[in-house]
Amino acid sequence: MRGAVIHAPGDVRFETLDDPKVLHPTDAVIRTAVTCVCGSDLWPYRGAEPIGDPHPMGHEYVGFVEEVGSAVTGLRPGQFVVGSFATSDNTCPNCLNGFQSNCLHREFMSTCQAEYVRVPNAAGTLVALDEVPDESLWPGLLANSDVMGTGWWAADAARVRPGSTAVVVGDGAVGLCAVIAAKELGAERIIAMSRHESRQELARAFGATDVVAERGEDGVARIKELTGGIGADSVLECVGTAQSTAQALHSARPGGSVGFVGVPHGVTVDGQELFFSHVGLRGGPAPVRRYLPDLIERVLSGRIDPGRVFDLTLPLDRVAEGYRAMDERRAIKALLTP
Amino acid sequence: MRGAVIHAPGDVRFETLDDPKVLHPTDAVIRTAVTCVCGSDLWPYRGAEPIGDPHPMGHEYVGFVEEVGSAVTGLRPGQFVVGSFATSDNTCPNCLNGFQSNCLHREFMSTCQAEYVRVPNAAGTLVALDEVPDESLWPGLLANSDVMGTGWWAADAARVRPGSTAVVVGDGAVGLCAVIAAKELGAERIIAMSRHESRQELARAFGATDVVAERGEDGVARIKELTGGIGADSVLECVGTAQSTAQALHSARPGGSVGFVGVPHGVTVDGQELFFSHVGLRGGPAPVRRYLPDLIERVLSGRIDPGRVFDLTLPLDRVAEGYRAMDERRAIKALLTP
Repeated sequence: MRGAVIHAPGDVRFETLDDPKVLHPTDAVIRTAVTCVCGSDLWPYRGAEPIGDPHPMGHEYVGFVEEVGSAVTGLRPGQFVVGSFATSDNTCPNCLNGFQSNCLHREFMSTCQAEYVRVPNAAGTLVALDEVPDESLWPGLLANSDVMGTGWWAADAARVRPGSTAVVVGDGAVGLCAVIAAKELGAERIIAMSRHESRQELARAFGATDVVAERGEDGVARIKELTGGIGADSVLECVGTAQSTAQALHSARPGGSVGFVGVPHGVTVDGQELFFSHVGLRGGPAPVRRYLPDLIERVLSGRIDPGRVFDLTLPLDRVAEGYRAMDERRAIKALLTP
Repeated sequence: MRGAVIHAPGDVRFETLDDPKVLHPTDAVIRTAVTCVCGSDLWPYRGAEPIGDPHPMGHEYVGFVEEVGSAVTGLRPGQFVVGSFATSDNTCPNCLNGFQSNCLHREFMSTCQAEYVRVPNAAGTLVALDEVPDESLWPGLLANSDVMGTGWWAADAARVRPGSTAVVVGDGAVGLCAVIAAKELGAERIIAMSRHESRQELARAFGATDVVAERGEDGVARIKELTGGIGADSVLECVGTAQSTAQALHSARPGGSVGFVGVPHGVTVDGQELFFSHVGLRGGPAPVRRYLPDLIERVLSGRIDPGRVFDLTLPLDRVAEGYRAMDERRAIKALLTP
């Protein structure tokens, strides 16, 4: 089969690879229906994370079950499944506590920009749909496997409540999905921080009531202006840089909460500053599996349409173009069709 | 009148000072019934915080209203009142949100180891009792003005829930009060980290089910052993050093929460480490005023007895001995009687 392989910063190639096989009794192999490029794939692509030897890429997927290991229950070939970028047995203490992305047997998916994918911990990771959904719903379901689940987690970790004010830092796919989540969780006011017109538009379509184009401390000052000088109840940090994190922390009101879901790069938090702010902070890799049944239902019913974050569709063999378009911010997120 | 003045590290004197007066219409002056030395007073006493010019000390107090400013409602001379170390108008957006210790008009109390004290924002800060309580209850009510309120906040910020497991880092007065709070909030298992026999005993009397004497990563390893390898739901950090904070963060389970109430000194948190831990973090100066009515009722009814943290009673003029005894860890907390 064929799939994407990163060789060096800026160098993603579409190559012939070994066909994935069931290696452990708990594995499944799926044929990808659609897959995509993630904002976090840009960290190594831009040289901000070491690459080491050339290796496959991709952790977002929906697809059809091809084969299951002998210990996999509840799945059978032909089913349409949605998974998570982090696999989980869904039975360990962390899974039972709702943190499947910290499963004791967790493996991160990393080979999904390909025609076929091996999924470890298949029974606890994959959610099978009753029937194959209409193709128009595949992008939304694919978004659930990472960016929509991560946006939901940002809103959950930031304790968005009905009637509250939420600020979303970051206008990538996760930030845009975080707007959806804030709206679904009842935020009355949703302030999207974005300076790109097409992303501002999508944020508004998803439920943002205000858009702030300023960044850094200027952005914080605007948030304060919009919130009676106090700051927001909830801030959803969807970038992961030192600047975006500071901006998020400074935008929250005393007693407010920051949910941070962009993998932190070069971020440290000063204990005394956090102390005197009274701001709560929680983040991490999203426990997508916890939210999947609910998010799938919201997509199937048409209540939410996170698939709109895909503004570029390419055949899988042109995956390198997807990286390039996202790196240059010409595309929010690239959908790949095998 | 007379009160404590710090001149230099290790040098606290009892001196004649100007009598406090109503300076603003919102002030009250109270005659202290009892006051005390706080663990946080030891930061400057030990030279860990700059002192500058000699200045009065003390921020914990209960007493009798002597005089009120023209704008003070609901208080009259002779009433017995309990306050908070942080004053608050109790009407600003932060107060209404339950974070009175971040009141827009907050002033920190700092002259309470004295015979008389000026209290700014008196109407929003002081809670008057219906009658003068029995003297045996004064220490418990005094504890409410800081250490018991702070212990409660630690448990609240660490999201202690009925049936949960709580770890308390720090066996000072705040840590011991945090044990009381964890028990009152329904924690099933309360693990106190302490290596001092008398404090271990008091922790057990307050509701600790386990005591761990090890510190640092050895302490973390013991917590993991006691929690099935996973960590605790809630960790109450009541010290404020880099080591104690690391110990707290590492003792929490994925998805667990750390409440940090010891003023951080030299603490920084690595963003990526916090991210992958899934641990939530919230702290700050305790919003004592929010809890006061409830805590006063618990003390008056005899349900809790945080006054037991005072294991040394001195006349106010021997305040310097109180500092010394606490600095040398011969006393948990020194009660001062004017």
